[in-house]
Amino acid sequence: MTSKPWGGRFDAGTDRRVEEFTESISFDRRLFRHDVLGSQAHARMLAHVGLLTQPECEAIVRGLGEIQAQIEAGDFPFVLEREDVHMHIEAALTEKLGDLGRKLHTGRSRNDQVSTDVKLWTRDAIDRLAAGLVHLQRAFVASAGRHEGLILPGYTHMQRAQPVLAPHYFLAYVEKLERDRSRLADCRRRLNVLPLGAAALAGTSIPIDREFTARELGFDGVAANSLDVSSDRDFAIEAVFALTLIAEHLAGWAEEWILWSTQEFGFLKLPDAICTGSSIMPQKKNPDVLELIRGRSARVIGSLTTLLVLIKGLPLAYNRDLQEDKIPLFDAFDTVEACVELAAVVVSGASLRPERIAERLDEGFLDATTLMEHLILNGVPQRTAHEVIGRLVGLCERKGLKRLADLADADLAEASPKLGPESRGLLGVEAAIRAFKSYGSTAPAEVAGQVERWKTKLEL
Amino acid sequence: MTSKPWGGRFDAGTDRRVEEFTESISFDRRLFRHDVLGSQAHARMLAHVGLLTQPECEAIVRGLGEIQAQIEAGDFPFVLEREDVHMHIEAALTEKLGDLGRKLHTGRSRNDQVSTDVKLWTRDAIDRLAAGLVHLQRAFVASAGRHEGLILPGYTHMQRAQPVLAPHYFLAYVEKLERDRSRLADCRRRLNVLPLGAAALAGTSIPIDREFTARELGFDGVAANSLDVSSDRDFAIEAVFALTLIAEHLAGWAEEWILWSTQEFGFLKLPDAICTGSSIMPQKKNPDVLELIRGRSARVIGSLTTLLVLIKGLPLAYNRDLQEDKIPLFDAFDTVEACVELAAVVVSGASLRPERIAERLDEGFLDATTLMEHLILNGVPQRTAHEVIGRLVGLCERKGLKRLADLADADLAEASPKLGPESRGLLGVEAAIRAFKSYGSTAPAEVAGQVERWKTKLEL
Amino acid sequence: MTSKPWGGRFDAGTDRRVEEFTESISFDRRLFRHDVLGSQAHARMLAHVGLLTQPECEAIVRGLGEIQAQIEAGDFPFVLEREDVHMHIEAALTEKLGDLGRKLHTGRSRNDQVSTDVKLWTRDAIDRLAAGLVHLQRAFVASAGRHEGLILPGYTHMQRAQPVLAPHYFLAYVEKLERDRSRLADCRRRLNVLPLGAAALAGTSIPIDREFTARELGFDGVAANSLDVSSDRDFAIEAVFALTLIAEHLAGWAEEWILWSTQEFGFLKLPDAICTGSSIMPQKKNPDVLELIRGRSARVIGSLTTLLVLIKGLPLAYNRDLQEDKIPLFDAFDTVEACVELAAVVVSGASLRPERIAERLDEGFLDATTLMEHLILNGVPQRTAHEVIGRLVGLCERKGLKRLADLADADLAEASPKLGPESRGLLGVEAAIRAFKSYGSTAPAEVAGQVERWKTKLEL
Amino acid sequence: MTSKPWGGRFDAGTDRRVEEFTESISFDRRLFRHDVLGSQAHARMLAHVGLLTQPECEAIVRGLGEIQAQIEAGDFPFVLEREDVHMHIEAALTEKLGDLGRKLHTGRSRNDQVSTDVKLWTRDAIDRLAAGLVHLQRAFVASAGRHEGLILPGYTHMQRAQPVLAPHYFLAYVEKLERDRSRLADCRRRLNVLPLGAAALAGTSIPIDREFTARELGFDGVAANSLDVSSDRDFAIEAVFALTLIAEHLAGWAEEWILWSTQEFGFLKLPDAICTGSSIMPQKKNPDVLELIRGRSARVIGSLTTLLVLIKGLPLAYNRDLQEDKIPLFDAFDTVEACVELAAVVVSGASLRPERIAERLDEGFLDATTLMEHLILNGVPQRTAHEVIGRLVGLCERKGLKRLADLADADLAEASPKLGPESRGLLGVEAAIRAFKSYGSTAPAEVAGQVERWKTKLEL
Repeated sequence: MTSKPWGGRFDAGTDRRVEEFTESISFDRRLFRHDVLGSQAHARMLAHVGLLTQPECEAIVRGLGEIQAQIEAGDFPFVLEREDVHMHIEAALTEKLGDLGRKLHTGRSRNDQVSTDVKLWTRDAIDRLAAGLVHLQRAFVASAGRHEGLILPGYTHMQRAQPVLAPHYFLAYVEKLERDRSRLADCRRRLNVLPLGAAALAGTSIPIDREFTARELGFDGVAANSLDVSSDRDFAIEAVFALTLIAEHLAGWAEEWILWSTQEFGFLKLPDAICTGSSIMPQKKNPDVLELIRGRSARVIGSLTTLLVLIKGLPLAYNRDLQEDKIPLFDAFDTVEACVELAAVVVSGASLRPERIAERLDEGFLDATTLMEHLILNGVPQRTAHEVIGRLVGLCERKGLKRLADLADADLAEASPKLGPESRGLLGVEAAIRAFKSYGSTAPAEVAGQVERWKTKLEL
Repeated sequence: MTSKPWGGRFDAGTDRRVEEFTESISFDRRLFRHDVLGSQAHARMLAHVGLLTQPECEAIVRGLGEIQAQIEAGDFPFVLEREDVHMHIEAALTEKLGDLGRKLHTGRSRNDQVSTDVKLWTRDAIDRLAAGLVHLQRAFVASAGRHEGLILPGYTHMQRAQPVLAPHYFLAYVEKLERDRSRLADCRRRLNVLPLGAAALAGTSIPIDREFTARELGFDGVAANSLDVSSDRDFAIEAVFALTLIAEHLAGWAEEWILWSTQEFGFLKLPDAICTGSSIMPQKKNPDVLELIRGRSARVIGSLTTLLVLIKGLPLAYNRDLQEDKIPLFDAFDTVEACVELAAVVVSGASLRPERIAERLDEGFLDATTLMEHLILNGVPQRTAHEVIGRLVGLCERKGLKRLADLADADLAEASPKLGPESRGLLGVEAAIRAFKSYGSTAPAEVAGQVERWKTKLEL
Repeated sequence: MTSKPWGGRFDAGTDRRVEEFTESISFDRRLFRHDVLGSQAHARMLAHVGLLTQPECEAIVRGLGEIQAQIEAGDFPFVLEREDVHMHIEAALTEKLGDLGRKLHTGRSRNDQVSTDVKLWTRDAIDRLAAGLVHLQRAFVASAGRHEGLILPGYTHMQRAQPVLAPHYFLAYVEKLERDRSRLADCRRRLNVLPLGAAALAGTSIPIDREFTARELGFDGVAANSLDVSSDRDFAIEAVFALTLIAEHLAGWAEEWILWSTQEFGFLKLPDAICTGSSIMPQKKNPDVLELIRGRSARVIGSLTTLLVLIKGLPLAYNRDLQEDKIPLFDAFDTVEACVELAAVVVSGASLRPERIAERLDEGFLDATTLMEHLILNGVPQRTAHEVIGRLVGLCERKGLKRLADLADADLAEASPKLGPESRGLLGVEAAIRAFKSYGSTAPAEVAGQVERWKTKLEL
Repeated sequence: MTSKPWGGRFDAGTDRRVEEFTESISFDRRLFRHDVLGSQAHARMLAHVGLLTQPECEAIVRGLGEIQAQIEAGDFPFVLEREDVHMHIEAALTEKLGDLGRKLHTGRSRNDQVSTDVKLWTRDAIDRLAAGLVHLQRAFVASAGRHEGLILPGYTHMQRAQPVLAPHYFLAYVEKLERDRSRLADCRRRLNVLPLGAAALAGTSIPIDREFTARELGFDGVAANSLDVSSDRDFAIEAVFALTLIAEHLAGWAEEWILWSTQEFGFLKLPDAICTGSSIMPQKKNPDVLELIRGRSARVIGSLTTLLVLIKGLPLAYNRDLQEDKIPLFDAFDTVEACVELAAVVVSGASLRPERIAERLDEGFLDATTLMEHLILNGVPQRTAHEVIGRLVGLCERKGLKRLADLADADLAEASPKLGPESRGLLGVEAAIRAFKSYGSTAPAEVAGQVERWKTKLEL
């Protein structure tokens, strides 16, 4: 009455609406390579411990390989009744090999099989994304190289604050992405422990060799508690969290470049190839890629939320709710991988517009802090120095002067006896940039050193 | 060099990776019916104000109808370069009608067109879901009818608390779903205001008649501020929020029925047709549908989060980020519609197991509160009465008695002079049920009245 | 051994760490006025049905009033052992009135009492916030009045798109806030149903009169199902959701005004009184209030998330988890009320800078769409017209011209025979503004009408 | 006119409502110890590089220590005007030391100062929590010791699946908590990089020695890019994420123990000291601590959401929004620390009820998988074996038999020739437990080995 591989005890077939509601084949089919890989390793292990003969093992490994090729060729029939990718592949194997195919599921359950497949998939995805991040870091470092010596206004509160060198700016993102890579690496290390062999939830009475399987599949260790394995989705959630911060870093950067592309800022020129127009306004050229990178951070945060809500309040061990882990996991990787790739396209294609930036670089009193620090170095307590310069800025505003340099000598001297004519040499953004000294600052030598450090590290 | 309808000012074509990154045709194609509907109404309005001749209008309306039929027949070519469903349909129309097709986009922009389409889609989805909710409410009321007179333990803190009639229990969910319907209705009312004609963001110099279009499309009014329209996604977010509470109500119910299906509770029998088995454990029969209903609430919450994060900090008016509204909106409706449908299948198919429930119904001192209230009605202050009965429960536990009725008369009398032998008539769950009096309580007459009220309201 | 009012059956006292972990008095004390109000109404109802004598009722009402006064005077001892505000007040009443105080908790439970108190609190908070929103709407309308005739660049994708009148811009927010008020009103209507009398979960055998209590407390109706009441937190979640959209609207507006306050935009002047400076950079003047309004939207979304996760997967009826509803509910109202209040301060205090705005208003080809629509009105199909103007914009860019008006007559004529010299009259933002016609557009007459409509509606 | 330390350029004082809206002293005052610590290290560094004399440095260090003592004694005046803890402490120092106090803020900004303080606070909180986790792990291992040999039903889909040893069950949580500790350790390593000296956003022209300060404060390194530092909140978000998974692990465990405390399961006895009663139902004993642990996971997820939304779309570098990071950070640590502490109280105080568990241990066919694996080991393909046993379970249900052992020999033999009388030795949960073999399984020897491994690792 039923052909389900688990149907022995059932009297009635499954309602069609239920099959549609519970299927996962529409989204877990993309695990097929990792399912084949895991099953091949499992078969080799079964042969290794004597539960399959060598020819049986070889037939299974070969059969699975053929199935993989068939799926890759788009030549594999997916049907709703077979629920998920695991049952599809096993059923196809049994069609090929008869009873031998029916032996493959020895000493394992779908619970640990799914967990293994998803870990293998996630591990590959992490490696792919880590490479994408390096690519993007290199694009930023290259952009740092292309914009050597260019001075930008630096902002806090989106108000002009201090001048910074463009390479210093680009490297800020390289730092953020480096932390992202480091989080991915930690996540990879923690996930790289074999679940297979935990079986349903309690292990198995079949004398399997989990260390063997772990070696075959490149896992660094074997999970030590079957109940933990059967309920664990930490690795998926941690991975998506790491993606969330990548998405956030890109969203902040995208916001900034969207701003810089406005007519008002005008700092950035984006190539036509990454912009689109308007269906009604003929003059529009919109930074769509940047907007979508910004917007898609929402989707990644949504995926993380889904996963965190999903497991909330679930007792041990496996619960079917966990099937819902894959859609947000896959979507988060797809989204972030695409954003990282496109970000590199944008970084490589965009160029800053030095003349537009320079045009109003003397607005915003970007040299005020340098002048204050000059007073400090001449013995004026910081708070006092701050007040002195603050008052000079107020004076400029009342007089309608845009720059501290526009003040008369008398104004400076009146503000502080330490602001003699020699202090004029500190005014202007170029002088301010030259004055920086601290490690990690935008001082030219510091920045050059950091650029070199990253070139070495990123093998550029 | 470019064939984009917005490409006049562009020098370079769009990067293929950018096209893939920015396309929405893969998910917005499902708007096609509403896009056709909206464009037909728009064309009729253009004819009404004299911007199209009547024959032109008819040709456009007919052409759009043919395109819709072609899409429905699966016979329409979707290509990446045409970005979205709107441009696909307009381009197909122009292929059909030449310059006449090029006139359709008069007095509108993609911004207001998309907004109109999505509102029309959402309105239909709300109506469909509201009908699904009524169907589920009816299933609960029918189940109330099937379980008349059955007494269940009621719980707080998942501890047995007081007895309740099964129909009272079922109606609790009917109440929750009624609030859900009411929220959907409010959302529908608020969204049913025409955006079309807001154009890109500022309106248009074309003398369009928005009232006409609103009537054609069944909108109750016309949006009064074009900048507001161009940036507004309130309706999508409010709809998804309403879905979130539906998903929550179903998740709580599913949790409860999963519990009731355990060997330990054993209150509920689920038909085989809505359960599945295990690939390794032959005896398993799992309540997968309920688990997935519980789990999928996470997905709806995730979709809401996506939308809330998406619009955070976006200035006026349209930003491309907003394209990302459709995936979570569609997914939330798909998910909740399916959950509501399957919930009705489960409610209709499942039956409570009176013998298993009755077996241990005298555990948990479900009559304790009734006895306390008997004391109150005999003049004992509530707090005093509470202590008296609390001590009797403690006494039972020390004596190993499961029920207050197992106490000796002397024990009762010693606890309070008001607990004479006549008070025995109040003990036991049946007596406790009979004692209830308040409106909205589980008193048999109250419950019967509520069942009738709902039958009338739901036309059963 | 224990003095808990629920301690009758308990052998051992509560662990101090447990008391600290489970207490709610530190945050629910702010419900005290509503708890007193609810208890007074409950006492009157008990007298009405004969369970209290009139003098007893009066003593209780008076006693509760004194306790409220004592709390208001900061003269009431809060202690951990009494867990929550409800037990504090009842215990104080019993200290005052002895056995009479012990009668108050007749026919109710903490579950329905808490629900009633929180609903009363939320209802007041909604009313307060709705008034705050009106105040803010009035501030926007007043600002519309102060900036009559001022033309702003309108944006999509943060790129200059079309010109808009400043009043039109301000009214966009009035529309959004109106939807917010409407959502609050719907929420209020749905919550305004009395829970009291649902008791623990099943109702009560005490012959209470819930209609009486509802009238006393201004509820529109009485909740019909006790199990539903005992588990229901829809009203709190719906309220916080409505707050979330308010917070989002303010966040988008704040982002915009932060941008407009940059040196680059320079559109907006914020008074010193709502800005702060930097501890190190003497020249800084930061739009902190706007940044915090933007940032605090995150907090409201976080509160909504907390509530949605909290109830996920909870079976009927009351579970202690629900105690955690109050902190996010209170925090969301506190946050949004403060943001709405401060937003009105900013809107009233800030002024646009016409000269800075005008300075570059001819950048961005804001008149391009008007010119395109001129072609359409002269019979050119929209798509063709779009290309013609798009090419003219491209020509300007290649020639280094900032404005379409800078093109030679020959350029215009070559682009389209319909662009004769008379079309010059449509160029420039003033002409573009004058050309708008559609309802809801930025056409001067339309905007003036909308301003009037709002003045009437908001009683200005 | 203003006494703000940043007020030099300001003409008008701050609006009182603005002060209330922007203040952080109400919540950042708890950073005072770390602010003092950071400032003392900063002063020593300034002395080290010659910007302060040794006596000046000593006076500052001493003064800061006195201020700390004063705050600890509750004897320090907090006032709204001084905004935050940093300005309070600096102002108090200046009151003590005059101009010398005004020198402290040399070469730093509030931006890097806050970042340093919050990192120091978080580092301490991580260390405290990691110790709490070890304490909880030890409680689980001790409980494993107390319940040696006890057999529990193991569940998947909340249906009885296979038997597990109680110690195996307890160790599942030890594994989860170990991953949590590992995540905290990674987070700590990544955060332990000194921000101080990044100043506002660009570094400083003061010749500070950041390596010196890092050593003083126990940081492992110095942040290399000032713009990155000024905008970075990764460390706070990553920490809260690690807390989120801890909260999830506890929520799942709490859910399970709430279930186990129901009358229906009856597996668990909770001491009175960690339960509470009902205000209306005298018999109730509720597992409130567990419910609150479950519920508070929502709050931690809400805090994570807040942080993720907060930074979404913020451009470089510091924005005032970031002030809002502290409330969710502090609240998440407070919540999770308390939950971890109380979880240990519950684990240590609760005991399983062997007789209640044993009573129905033969329900649910927990030995079915073992019998299936027996067939596999005798050459029957897994899928065939699965069907055979599945059919036997179906037979039991039809015959009304609770256990496979209740089947007749003939039934077994008919199902498979390999199910001879000797296979009876595999039936029953004890036999099933003994049969397990795989690493990580619930096999007695495996479990004993794991208990030993953890005792060693946790120094028990």
